[in-house]
Amino acid sequence: MSKNVPYRINLPEEYIPKQWYNIRADMKDKQPPLLNPSTLKPATLYDLTPVFCTELAKQELDDTTRYIDIPEPICEFYKMCRPSPLIRAYCLEKELGTPAKIYYKFEGNNTSGSHKLNSAIPQAYYAKAQGLKSLTTETGAGQWGTALSMACAYYDLPLTVYMVKGSYLQKPFRKNIIETFGAKIVPSPSDTTKVGRAILEKFPNTTGSLGCAISEAVETAVEGDNSRYVLGSVLNQVVLHQSIIGLEAKAALEMYDEYPDIVIGCAGGGSNIGGLIAPFMKDKIDGTKNPYFIAVEPASCPSLTRGKYAYDFCDTGKVTPLAKMYTLGCEFQPASNHAGGLRYHGMSPIISKLYHDGLIDEARGVEQTAIFKSAVQFARCEGILPAPESAHAIWATVEEALKCKETGEEKTILFGLTGTGYFDMTAYSSFLEQTMGDYIPTDEELEEAFKLLPQVE
Amino acid sequence: MSKNVPYRINLPEEYIPKQWYNIRADMKDKQPPLLNPSTLKPATLYDLTPVFCTELAKQELDDTTRYIDIPEPICEFYKMCRPSPLIRAYCLEKELGTPAKIYYKFEGNNTSGSHKLNSAIPQAYYAKAQGLKSLTTETGAGQWGTALSMACAYYDLPLTVYMVKGSYLQKPFRKNIIETFGAKIVPSPSDTTKVGRAILEKFPNTTGSLGCAISEAVETAVEGDNSRYVLGSVLNQVVLHQSIIGLEAKAALEMYDEYPDIVIGCAGGGSNIGGLIAPFMKDKIDGTKNPYFIAVEPASCPSLTRGKYAYDFCDTGKVTPLAKMYTLGCEFQPASNHAGGLRYHGMSPIISKLYHDGLIDEARGVEQTAIFKSAVQFARCEGILPAPESAHAIWATVEEALKCKETGEEKTILFGLTGTGYFDMTAYSSFLEQTMGDYIPTDEELEEAFKLLPQVE
Repeated sequence: MSKNVPYRINLPEEYIPKQWYNIRADMKDKQPPLLNPSTLKPATLYDLTPVFCTELAKQELDDTTRYIDIPEPICEFYKMCRPSPLIRAYCLEKELGTPAKIYYKFEGNNTSGSHKLNSAIPQAYYAKAQGLKSLTTETGAGQWGTALSMACAYYDLPLTVYMVKGSYLQKPFRKNIIETFGAKIVPSPSDTTKVGRAILEKFPNTTGSLGCAISEAVETAVEGDNSRYVLGSVLNQVVLHQSIIGLEAKAALEMYDEYPDIVIGCAGGGSNIGGLIAPFMKDKIDGTKNPYFIAVEPASCPSLTRGKYAYDFCDTGKVTPLAKMYTLGCEFQPASNHAGGLRYHGMSPIISKLYHDGLIDEARGVEQTAIFKSAVQFARCEGILPAPESAHAIWATVEEALKCKETGEEKTILFGLTGTGYFDMTAYSSFLEQTMGDYIPTDEELEEAFKLLPQVE
Repeated sequence: MSKNVPYRINLPEEYIPKQWYNIRADMKDKQPPLLNPSTLKPATLYDLTPVFCTELAKQELDDTTRYIDIPEPICEFYKMCRPSPLIRAYCLEKELGTPAKIYYKFEGNNTSGSHKLNSAIPQAYYAKAQGLKSLTTETGAGQWGTALSMACAYYDLPLTVYMVKGSYLQKPFRKNIIETFGAKIVPSPSDTTKVGRAILEKFPNTTGSLGCAISEAVETAVEGDNSRYVLGSVLNQVVLHQSIIGLEAKAALEMYDEYPDIVIGCAGGGSNIGGLIAPFMKDKIDGTKNPYFIAVEPASCPSLTRGKYAYDFCDTGKVTPLAKMYTLGCEFQPASNHAGGLRYHGMSPIISKLYHDGLIDEARGVEQTAIFKSAVQFARCEGILPAPESAHAIWATVEEALKCKETGEEKTILFGLTGTGYFDMTAYSSFLEQTMGDYIPTDEELEEAFKLLPQVE
């Protein structure tokens, strides 16, 4: 079979899904609801709409509609960059000498450089359709900020991006590209918000975190004129939009009678892995197939592998609803890690629930030096420079492929190559010059952070 | 017809050409030969092979073989990134309100970020096949250096890249990416070569030029152990390899019964425009079609629009053969211009001859501030951040499309989008902050430079 598989499977544009797939509709045991932090009651549409666009808030709460129509203008935009290619990693297979068949869904071939555009476009579209005057958001590595600035340029919507200061300093050109698309960018924590000022007072030397940047963006949106906050990961709506990754990957594999034995994704907020695995998870829940799912996260920010499954704030400033998720505590300050997109204290509630229920089979935490070793190996043989976030999935893929080499099993492995590393050259450089370190929080540090979890149950 | 044209035409891998097309075979009036600078006799294989790989030197001299087989391993590599998409610029058309149909062949969706990989792979392949121990090259903007470092990593060949110092300083991350692929990079002029030291003595503050970097790379290759020099543009062999761009573009257009009325390319060394127009030029020479060809170059380095058609050295250090081409004189030091890939004193002898004979209809020189205006407009509506070099072609496309708007003509315009601008953010930033200037050499400056042309005829 595989002899006929091309290097790159490029589906024609008719194959762009017309509907997103909502995995929650098929989860037999639903995830616990978001809670209003003042009342500890399930968050309602009324609670969410001051912060979120109304249509997106509806999607956030919807756990029954299996397929949700993608509005026609969004489909039109998707045609500019989708379907994304599903690539057979022939060169990596050869390099590893593995009998495994490795496929990756490559989401980096658009100017945002990642899968983030899949959700940026619908979020900007719904904001425009609602007549909003501006949006705010946060960005870690800068991929989401870039994607949303592209989407807002397309729909002519003003945007302010709070970028995690550590990443902002490591990646000066992210500022320039976001400004090229007409958005405003602020390093976070900043003195432009109450919550930013409070965090700076408590941790004057912090390089920031996603949780902190979220707080600042939410505050700015709520206090703005007909403005709303949008988020690039974690939320149910984002996992919904990202299902387009898995739907396309599945269609492309089916075209060659392939089905993955193992599906691997990197996990920061969880939107990429959530979108990638969604349609395969449906098969697992339905009992028609039994793929093995692996989530890979940085050992420096190990929410799935060492966090608690508990209600917590989605942000450091404690202005968001409470979500039940794997978390390190919303005040956990992750060590400097170049995979800025994975420096988040929590995890998508969907991914958390699936992992808690054993439907995601395994989570692995890995040090960044190991990640970059895989990244450089992959770049040199596959000719694509991966984002450090994506390289987490490459690392686990290499591990699994080498296991197949030992056992002789011809497993089919699918992983998500979420983005490119063009803006991560400082990190590549520190890896090559062997100045890159690893940092793993101690049990004591995590216990301290857990003490600050809100007492909900 | 156009209603059925998708946003992106992705041909399946069977459509990757199996042969390169050699436009010289069809030129009725052949271009004058390369000359050995000591004898002023036509350069022979014997003259070229100390510097170039033997197979590439043969291609350099071949003006009779119309189609040249692409070796199977090169075809295999091409499958990793080709066919490149031909994109219908629906959003740009709408933005401009033009009845013109605009297509662009996008060569930037590979990690090198440009079309340069098309020639890097065959050049590294032939070097490896010949048993060479290392290669040297120059790079301007860094696209060629990146492409060749990828190719050399793939074939496990050591590589030294001389990078024009101005670009090296503007784009520090180019160094990192080239090193990620295992190559060595040296800012040029450097004190590592005799010619570099001589140039530094004469122009201590120079930010370098392609011509100067070429001299250093050639010197290093010739003095190395079983090493050769390779070049990313200008040469006939490179235009030959780049014909794959035009062949694929033509096949994709034919699939939708389209044929371009106008074909536009940016012109620095000439390889991209040469490759793009080659199969369409064949039709023009054969008399079956009459497309209008436009070459666009920076006003700061105006070889076609203000240069002389004369024999000149290909490099500043005067170590290469003499080529008859449009040139500003090999000692011309172009002003700092962010489109580093277009800062070359000369022009492909093929393009020069076609332009001289009126087969390329028009050349336009344009200021960089105008270029960046087009680049930002394009990025915001088409969602692709163009390289400054590529933006020269966008600029002329916009001009032509607006003419169509005035006249109501539904012309079909094809342009080459050679690469992405991820490594050009400093330039974008200086444009957005309005600190970017324009520089156009005076007639007197050019006259001075012309005085130093070698006296051949």
